[in-house]
Amino acid sequence: MATLNSSFISNQTLPFPSPTNLPSHSRALRRRQLVPIRMSLPDNSNSNSSTDPITSLTRLLWGRALPPQPLISAVRSTWSATWLLMMRQLAPSSSSGSYSRPPGLFPSVPSLYHSSPQTPNATNSLHLYVGLPCPWAHRTLIVRALKNLEAHLPVSVAAPGSDGSWEFHSGPTDGSVLVAGPDKANRKKNLREVYRMRRGGYDGRSTVPMLWDVKRKEVVCNESYGIIEFLNSGFAAGSGPDLCPVQLRGEIERWNQVIYPAVNNGVYRCGFAQSQEAYDTAVNELFTTLDKLESHLSTNQYLCGDTLTLSDVCLFTTLIRFDLVYNVLFKCTKRKIIEYPNLYAYTRDIYQMPKVAETCNFEAIMDGYYRTLFPLNPGGIQPIMPLVCQYESLSKPHGREVLSLKSKQLQLSPP
Amino acid sequence: MATLNSSFISNQTLPFPSPTNLPSHSRALRRRQLVPIRMSLPDNSNSNSSTDPITSLTRLLWGRALPPQPLISAVRSTWSATWLLMMRQLAPSSSSGSYSRPPGLFPSVPSLYHSSPQTPNATNSLHLYVGLPCPWAHRTLIVRALKNLEAHLPVSVAAPGSDGSWEFHSGPTDGSVLVAGPDKANRKKNLREVYRMRRGGYDGRSTVPMLWDVKRKEVVCNESYGIIEFLNSGFAAGSGPDLCPVQLRGEIERWNQVIYPAVNNGVYRCGFAQSQEAYDTAVNELFTTLDKLESHLSTNQYLCGDTLTLSDVCLFTTLIRFDLVYNVLFKCTKRKIIEYPNLYAYTRDIYQMPKVAETCNFEAIMDGYYRTLFPLNPGGIQPIMPLVCQYESLSKPHGREVLSLKSKQLQLSPP
Repeated sequence: MATLNSSFISNQTLPFPSPTNLPSHSRALRRRQLVPIRMSLPDNSNSNSSTDPITSLTRLLWGRALPPQPLISAVRSTWSATWLLMMRQLAPSSSSGSYSRPPGLFPSVPSLYHSSPQTPNATNSLHLYVGLPCPWAHRTLIVRALKNLEAHLPVSVAAPGSDGSWEFHSGPTDGSVLVAGPDKANRKKNLREVYRMRRGGYDGRSTVPMLWDVKRKEVVCNESYGIIEFLNSGFAAGSGPDLCPVQLRGEIERWNQVIYPAVNNGVYRCGFAQSQEAYDTAVNELFTTLDKLESHLSTNQYLCGDTLTLSDVCLFTTLIRFDLVYNVLFKCTKRKIIEYPNLYAYTRDIYQMPKVAETCNFEAIMDGYYRTLFPLNPGGIQPIMPLVCQYESLSKPHGREVLSLKSKQLQLSPP
Repeated sequence: MATLNSSFISNQTLPFPSPTNLPSHSRALRRRQLVPIRMSLPDNSNSNSSTDPITSLTRLLWGRALPPQPLISAVRSTWSATWLLMMRQLAPSSSSGSYSRPPGLFPSVPSLYHSSPQTPNATNSLHLYVGLPCPWAHRTLIVRALKNLEAHLPVSVAAPGSDGSWEFHSGPTDGSVLVAGPDKANRKKNLREVYRMRRGGYDGRSTVPMLWDVKRKEVVCNESYGIIEFLNSGFAAGSGPDLCPVQLRGEIERWNQVIYPAVNNGVYRCGFAQSQEAYDTAVNELFTTLDKLESHLSTNQYLCGDTLTLSDVCLFTTLIRFDLVYNVLFKCTKRKIIEYPNLYAYTRDIYQMPKVAETCNFEAIMDGYYRTLFPLNPGGIQPIMPLVCQYESLSKPHGREVLSLKSKQLQLSPP
């Protein structure tokens, strides 16, 4: 066991005699009154410690002082070394301690699933696996909703288990509300078992989102961007806006190249950094990019102007988690999103689009991150939800339609 | 070693071919281009892992999948149990896991030091020991500055050592700038040695602030409130405003009874909570109180109206650390102080008073908390400083003199 810095846990008595009696104004009286209170406190702590053998033992060994200094130093080194060992398993890193995300094994949806006259029913056997805390899976839920694919692409929602796997919960198999429930396609207990159903076997991590072919018993794609591209333009039954119009594809991909490394993966590079240097690089890149986005969004309703695109979906799923978990757990501390007026209004704009709020489950997100990423939260205590992440805050008017109107008026006005 | 939830570290490749080349707009081409990139990533991670025997071993044991689930569960339990053991030593707790601050042994300054005709020079031999990260010690530095006692009460600034003690650094003994330096009174290496110089011995924690009598070799007081009361009204040489005027003493003590348990110690009760229940109680009390203070300060420049008092000093040293460390490290996540307009302006008001900013060392505060409280920050990584805690942000006009003017005008206006 270790202990800690003296002054931070300073032997501070109440600076006033008693919580129930209003104190006298006389300093001399105050000093007299303090004595019995001070005397009573050690009794309390003794009675507590008697129920705790560790505290009794340490009380015997080093009294009320700190434990011996070599013990503190040893425990501290062991603690940090254990953390580093866990982090190496949790988050593969480069030799400099930078987090490097492992590549997926099924990066894109094979062409046989894309709608064509030859394969009109290719998507009939598809099933989507997601987890609500995960920002990558969240992308697929949003595009599925915006493209009105709910009736055409069934979804099973897993939840993080205590051992690090995605587990299914019991419940009805016909519910359409997005909460953790059963595996509606394969009736498995966890996602690992689903991955292992494929003929070729599977030795990778069992991640969400995962698009599964129920008939062929095969993983179709487990890369979020591959799935959302497919849902937008390859899935025959899709309707709703085109989130990747031909004329914007260059711009969209340029935005993706900015957002993915610095923001989407950038927050993970902050939180999973295993050296100060790796963290510093990641956090500077993250906030430099957020500053640039804040400026860009001061004159553009969305990243590519007036049109919501896949890039916005990708940015949104990170922004909506930022003040909720990344600010604290991943040490993205320079600013909260609420401190960026344009980014915060932009987040609210997308949040308020029909069916998007239903894909955001803040309790599940907080629970997922704080419980699952236990090396970063050793006590397992769940912090209180930030006020700005509550439904009421996010439902406030965003006023961003003005930006779109302005650009339209500019186009209409005579040269 | 443990590992973690699949989706959070999802096997996400870059959703675009290459960071340097602008990608083609053709989806088919993109899919072809993705392959070589995906293939190249495992090589990179292999080359990294070859330098890391642990990763090589685990790769051998469970390939690219997660470690076996029982191992994860076991490591997770051990990790949390170790955390709890460390926290029990760091922060004494009640049986319900609530932090209970240990009482001080020298709670108030004995009357012989108070100025009187019989003891005109009683304060000549006093020396103040502080540490810059500590909010309790910070109180004494502010009152010493506001009462213009710098020339009359020398101070030695210790810094948190890696083993949990307050250490002195080498440096000149005549400097007046508030940075960690040598023990100017006793030339000791750390504060523990100073405490042990007293005739009666000492078995408590060696905390700051500590008021020391150089001649008598005795601890005079190590409770911050006892010291600041004395500096305000007992120390003969003091000048400057009375921070505890007779007519306000009742009100000041009532504020102290609100602020100490819910805010000053409240943030510690959040950060040092050893059960979810203890945290929930503390965090709700903290934010309920901050909400009330925000409302009170909308019509009052200071807690007791127009007059800065000791209660304001006590509140200030917690507020100035709130967005800097408590928000993240102690999970005080509901709001940052920047999200409370009145509390934030009130903090800036006090920060901008002459000589107060010099007592605030943000680098020392962050370093002290994040490095010293290692059970709460196992990786030891220091987060980036929040923008709102920088000098430039805190120096912006606070506009709170208006509140004081208004109340004066009300007094002056005819009934």
